[in-house]
Amino acid sequence: MIRLTRCYAFPAAHVLCSPELSDEENRRVFGKCANPAGHGHDYRIEVTVEGELDSATGELVPVAELDRLFEDAVRAPLGHRMLNETERFRGLVPTAENVARVVHEDLDRELARRGAPRLAGVRVVETSRNSFETGEAR
Amino acid sequence: MIRLTRCYAFPAAHVLCSPELSDEENRRVFGKCANPAGHGHDYRIEVTVEGELDSATGELVPVAELDRLFEDAVRAPLGHRMLNETERFRGLVPTAENVARVVHEDLDRELARRGAPRLAGVRVVETSRNSFETGEAR
Amino acid sequence: MIRLTRCYAFPAAHVLCSPELSDEENRRVFGKCANPAGHGHDYRIEVTVEGELDSATGELVPVAELDRLFEDAVRAPLGHRMLNETERFRGLVPTAENVARVVHEDLDRELARRGAPRLAGVRVVETSRNSFETGEAR
Amino acid sequence: MIRLTRCYAFPAAHVLCSPELSDEENRRVFGKCANPAGHGHDYRIEVTVEGELDSATGELVPVAELDRLFEDAVRAPLGHRMLNETERFRGLVPTAENVARVVHEDLDRELARRGAPRLAGVRVVETSRNSFETGEAR
Amino acid sequence: MIRLTRCYAFPAAHVLCSPELSDEENRRVFGKCANPAGHGHDYRIEVTVEGELDSATGELVPVAELDRLFEDAVRAPLGHRMLNETERFRGLVPTAENVARVVHEDLDRELARRGAPRLAGVRVVETSRNSFETGEAR
Amino acid sequence: MIRLTRCYAFPAAHVLCSPELSDEENRRVFGKCANPAGHGHDYRIEVTVEGELDSATGELVPVAELDRLFEDAVRAPLGHRMLNETERFRGLVPTAENVARVVHEDLDRELARRGAPRLAGVRVVETSRNSFETGEAR
Repeated sequence: MIRLTRCYAFPAAHVLCSPELSDEENRRVFGKCANPAGHGHDYRIEVTVEGELDSATGELVPVAELDRLFEDAVRAPLGHRMLNETERFRGLVPTAENVARVVHEDLDRELARRGAPRLAGVRVVETSRNSFETGEAR
Repeated sequence: MIRLTRCYAFPAAHVLCSPELSDEENRRVFGKCANPAGHGHDYRIEVTVEGELDSATGELVPVAELDRLFEDAVRAPLGHRMLNETERFRGLVPTAENVARVVHEDLDRELARRGAPRLAGVRVVETSRNSFETGEAR
Repeated sequence: MIRLTRCYAFPAAHVLCSPELSDEENRRVFGKCANPAGHGHDYRIEVTVEGELDSATGELVPVAELDRLFEDAVRAPLGHRMLNETERFRGLVPTAENVARVVHEDLDRELARRGAPRLAGVRVVETSRNSFETGEAR
Repeated sequence: MIRLTRCYAFPAAHVLCSPELSDEENRRVFGKCANPAGHGHDYRIEVTVEGELDSATGELVPVAELDRLFEDAVRAPLGHRMLNETERFRGLVPTAENVARVVHEDLDRELARRGAPRLAGVRVVETSRNSFETGEAR
Repeated sequence: MIRLTRCYAFPAAHVLCSPELSDEENRRVFGKCANPAGHGHDYRIEVTVEGELDSATGELVPVAELDRLFEDAVRAPLGHRMLNETERFRGLVPTAENVARVVHEDLDRELARRGAPRLAGVRVVETSRNSFETGEAR
Repeated sequence: MIRLTRCYAFPAAHVLCSPELSDEENRRVFGKCANPAGHGHDYRIEVTVEGELDSATGELVPVAELDRLFEDAVRAPLGHRMLNETERFRGLVPTAENVARVVHEDLDRELARRGAPRLAGVRVVETSRNSFETGEAR
């Protein structure tokens, strides 16, 4: 069993504002991040897939295929956009936690359709101090 | 002579769109970055100051003073904002190149008022592959 | 389930010297690190917590709360100190392995008192080549 | 239970070419990497071992012992070589995935002979965007 | 005046062996690097250009143009190759120092032909501990 | 002209306390860093030398020679020590600024005795946010 982790990135903007909270609560919870003009991040996304090696090629998966899949399922719909205005984040506060969940669900569905390898987890690196990772509880 | 480089960061959003260019030209020059909804970056700013050491303290400048100066002159007016809508970028396309120039000019003015040390340069790290630096030609 | 990893740092000094070993054994096991004058490190501590997202905020935990907890439970008692002389390391050789254990135990107790999220693990990065991680056996 | 991760590196060359594939298939699967003159990488290898601390020393394992073991079992036979021509890669395409497997198997055998600690996994960092990790499925 | 630094990378192989030295001298000077089977590196190349901003676009140079220029002048002729066998290194020992010189000369000629911006310097990062930079003496 | 930058590291402890200042001033200037028990850092030292390439070897300087020189002139006298108690820092507050000056002076003297290459500068990386560099004013 081998795991491959490949790093991607895309810039996007967001406003942190929950429709379930009052203006005052939004300001208290999200601070400057609730500023309605929005701000942005370079999301670094580390995608980890796992499975058995192809014995003929010695590879887990052709990296170019993984790149196409990420391009189609993640970067095209989310990159260079205001996340709050995308279809995918309708009803979701676009925190880095939810970006991780959305990217995990969308890649998982596409990888499952393709057969192999399976998605082991997604890590969203929002800044040099914070990252968010999907997966089973440890 | 000693130079101190200290790293700061702030997230912000921008749209790359020049009033001097037609819509088509803006699209050709800036690609997805001209998307009117905006997108964002975590700007890492490396500030370099230089001068002689204070012989009593063995320091070039108290780091806490530099931090206050950066907070007041840069992070408060630009952090967590849509740069296109700030007073400071009126008439300037908020490319990373112009972010570097603006930060350089604003810190230089504040440091000059304070006496010492002098600003040697500013580097804006937009992504892991691109950075922009002010200073004299080499 | 989402895991958040947040990075902290504090500088401290230590001497590696075990009361259960002779001077010669200490010198053999710890080399220059047994030098009685002590030396220091910048400990980078990566704290990983895990749990379910708050559906109203889309967040796992307010980062500012985690920061206060780390400040109180770890940085205040250990930062800028000679670890060998702290109460917490009485009877423990202050290796990076034991720093990881101590930080894990102290954060785990505080997080458990608070309710959620739970501590998934602690990583101590002693140098660019060595890191030490707590958690279940793989 | 504590895990120690220590980073090693060695440069080597490889040609990606599988005897089970035709020339055309090799070119399609491996692209420029099938260029018969070979090319190279600086393989960064992160070795993770786990176990209980020695209560007298507060250490998991003397790092110098781990270094000797890596030197003998990995760097001496593989470093500064054309991997395709080494005994160890006879019949294996020297992809980073197989480098990870080979390093894992060789360190695991040597650590098992020695008693403790046990090998938890090996990560091969081929480039800043790709890494390959051994271990149990998540 | 603004400087842009953009990072590129390509893998290649080399053998360090000088025709002006005896076999014994080559072995003494280059150690394992003289191993005739060759070994390889991931050369990270940081290209720095400088000039005045285009006032309409706020940019120094379109990054896509710089990328094409690097692809044509450097990566196509040197990437995924045994440097010793390339036309460009005929009579030159392919040390990282000479890689830096060659990349500098080839990019400088292409940038000069294009008009602007000018090349300020090239840095070749051979490993995490060694880098080599062209430019005027400080 | 080529510049080589090579990275070294050593851990050490220090107390920031100036004999020219009162206890209260020391506390105000240096904060927790004046804590008399001391604390420590992993000093990363980037040494930059410059000169012409040796045309026979294509190298600026044998890296092993530079390593020996650093070992003898810097790491042996300063590594794993309380800097305040070393001969070299008698009368100097061991700030990172003064560590940079001391390392620069000591390497410069040894390199000058050896002939070539000359020292272009020394950078001391105290933490991930602060670094200190010697050299001519920009």
